[in-house]
Amino acid sequence: MTGTLTGSTVGTGGGTGDEEQRLARAALTYLAEPGDPALGALLEICEPGEVLAAIKAGQLPAAADWRIAAAGRHIAPAAARARHAALAQALGRWRLRLPDLPHDLVATCGNDIRLVCPSDPEWPGQLDELGPARPYALWLRGTVSLRSTTERSASMVGSRAASGYGAHVAGEIAADLAERDWAVVSGGAYGIDAAVHRGVLATGGTTITVLACGVDHAYPAGHDGLFTAIAASGLVISEWPPGSHPTRLRFLTRNRVIAALTKGTVIVEAGERSGALNTARHAAELNRPLMAVPGPVTSPQSAGCHRIIREWGGALVTCAADVLEMLVPLGEAASPELERSRLPAAERTRSEAASASAPLSRDDLDLDSLRVLDAFPARGGTGPATIARKAGVEIDTVIRCVGLLAGCGFIERGEQGWRLTRKAR
Amino acid sequence: MTGTLTGSTVGTGGGTGDEEQRLARAALTYLAEPGDPALGALLEICEPGEVLAAIKAGQLPAAADWRIAAAGRHIAPAAARARHAALAQALGRWRLRLPDLPHDLVATCGNDIRLVCPSDPEWPGQLDELGPARPYALWLRGTVSLRSTTERSASMVGSRAASGYGAHVAGEIAADLAERDWAVVSGGAYGIDAAVHRGVLATGGTTITVLACGVDHAYPAGHDGLFTAIAASGLVISEWPPGSHPTRLRFLTRNRVIAALTKGTVIVEAGERSGALNTARHAAELNRPLMAVPGPVTSPQSAGCHRIIREWGGALVTCAADVLEMLVPLGEAASPELERSRLPAAERTRSEAASASAPLSRDDLDLDSLRVLDAFPARGGTGPATIARKAGVEIDTVIRCVGLLAGCGFIERGEQGWRLTRKAR
Repeated sequence: MTGTLTGSTVGTGGGTGDEEQRLARAALTYLAEPGDPALGALLEICEPGEVLAAIKAGQLPAAADWRIAAAGRHIAPAAARARHAALAQALGRWRLRLPDLPHDLVATCGNDIRLVCPSDPEWPGQLDELGPARPYALWLRGTVSLRSTTERSASMVGSRAASGYGAHVAGEIAADLAERDWAVVSGGAYGIDAAVHRGVLATGGTTITVLACGVDHAYPAGHDGLFTAIAASGLVISEWPPGSHPTRLRFLTRNRVIAALTKGTVIVEAGERSGALNTARHAAELNRPLMAVPGPVTSPQSAGCHRIIREWGGALVTCAADVLEMLVPLGEAASPELERSRLPAAERTRSEAASASAPLSRDDLDLDSLRVLDAFPARGGTGPATIARKAGVEIDTVIRCVGLLAGCGFIERGEQGWRLTRKAR
Repeated sequence: MTGTLTGSTVGTGGGTGDEEQRLARAALTYLAEPGDPALGALLEICEPGEVLAAIKAGQLPAAADWRIAAAGRHIAPAAARARHAALAQALGRWRLRLPDLPHDLVATCGNDIRLVCPSDPEWPGQLDELGPARPYALWLRGTVSLRSTTERSASMVGSRAASGYGAHVAGEIAADLAERDWAVVSGGAYGIDAAVHRGVLATGGTTITVLACGVDHAYPAGHDGLFTAIAASGLVISEWPPGSHPTRLRFLTRNRVIAALTKGTVIVEAGERSGALNTARHAAELNRPLMAVPGPVTSPQSAGCHRIIREWGGALVTCAADVLEMLVPLGEAASPELERSRLPAAERTRSEAASASAPLSRDDLDLDSLRVLDAFPARGGTGPATIARKAGVEIDTVIRCVGLLAGCGFIERGEQGWRLTRKAR
């Protein structure tokens, strides 16, 4: 598929109209910075091709007014006009970059660079949770499917100035996740990011690096070989078109994609002002599990991790099993053994997966587990000490039973501690 | 006061009858193991002198039957008789130790050993939360008041096989607590316990060691000098009478006193099977704040600490300020500056202390703090991400405001995250 933008849509019957919209999205990645709220808002009411034509023409499409009003529902005509004016003004900003647009967009894709758009089957639906801030499109190097790879994925990020301890632990946890058939997503920096990718590559697993520059551009230059190795078995992806250079702001913009692509985010090491805390914040804002690896309290590189656990409610994780405990939907098999017998991901429903693990009914529970289950409040979460007191059992018993009860889908971990699932209420 | 048991009761007008009860309690520490549930139950319905007489006579007092019935309220006569029989049987067990009883109990106290009983003004009332398992009495070496010292105290315990990291951090946190006028309570073992005491002694602060043997007995022998130094400015205490030797079980029994004496417990390092986890469990059962210091996930000595944070709901603490944040009642001054101007502890009420910190009314709050406060649910706890979403502010703003709101007593940290205080509801 050399020199085309169709990438993953091959064979899915994308017509000429679709192709035009995809080319328009490719063009938009040249004209606007990712996450631009004005462009995000415009793409919610106009086709990409219309937006591109409007930028070229220097004025919004005629239908934009009523679409703005429709999108805003009960918006007053004056407010709609104000929004229209703001968008028209943004057009001017984007027009400034028109000279950057390649004459032949199709030619910007080489043998190993392709584009994935929101309308493509390969688009990972979880990115849509970013709302108007979702990427306009993604540029990819690598052949595996972005969508199916990220269905079972965790992000792991951390300081560039990693300690030997942090790099070691990052590599170990990443390798263990890969061995359990989980993909790992990270940035492309020195330190923790590199340790994560190398840990996965050593096991032959799938790793994904999300760059803040074009996928043809190695930043840092010393990672040229690493990115090539990642693309050979995994993916190098970016919101910026080929040829783009990174900026400080782009790293921060990029972080929301790392968080949004994955089921949860693990911070391995982070100083008090590390960019990894920005990724952590995105994970928290997306309500995805946020995890952090502890370290010595004497190590500045662990200070951010400890803060995430202490103040942000992040979970303390020490190994891949801890990470998966936070990520695997309750009742779904977390062990590699059960997962080897996997169906194609799209066909596997949660209920099917749940039926693979036993026991599932109250009748199958031992007496201690029943006692512990009955001690849970009808609403809200609780901690093991309270349960132990109410159930009249040792806290150790509670801890043992909680594992079983969560595995059977009777309880789940919520923001406020363990709580009953709907099934158990 | 050489050779008397009156110790801290001097000058408080304890009469002959009181002295007899105190001597009886001293005797009981020779006859029964601490925490014996039968003796605890008996002491709830009989005077210590009556119990001692019953042991010597080999039969329960005549009035025991109706007292058992009265204590059990609606207990059936048959059940009362069964309890009577069980207690009478326990008498036989305690009688076996009658030969161990010193001929002259008063003489067992030297210049620097004294007894503190539940009826004494120096008795720390927080021990009564142990219920029937509260100590019969405590033997003390040292001159400071057990009661007033433990009013502002934290326990810090951990592995004997401490790492250099653990010993360093234990000493640092203990010294910092002492510098803020907090007493520290620990065991007497090598490793973390010793590091805690040495850290406090280096600052001239007050440290308390709770032994599982007589206070005249140095175990381990290498800590003879350490215990003498502790007694010179703090306290060496034990439930076992002078001359007692430690046993494995006695260490576990002792742990409940360490937890019960203090406002909260910090585990500095603990392997998966460390005795420190037993102390942690007691703290959790007493609903006192349980804290743990994280460490490298590659260090077996930190595995128990990480488990406490992950599974028991313990708070991650990295320094003395983190510990005090968990221990200082909301609205009370945590900073040493404010505390220097302290009144005698007995006269200081919480409301007086609260009035020292400003601002205290909603009118004094900034707009962001008000917005965050209003986003808290009326009942139950919540996490910063949820609050940020509801308040429509950045998670950073929430984190900043939470500190202020907690300091002003509007919110508090509960088992299920942050929640409104009664004042704020």
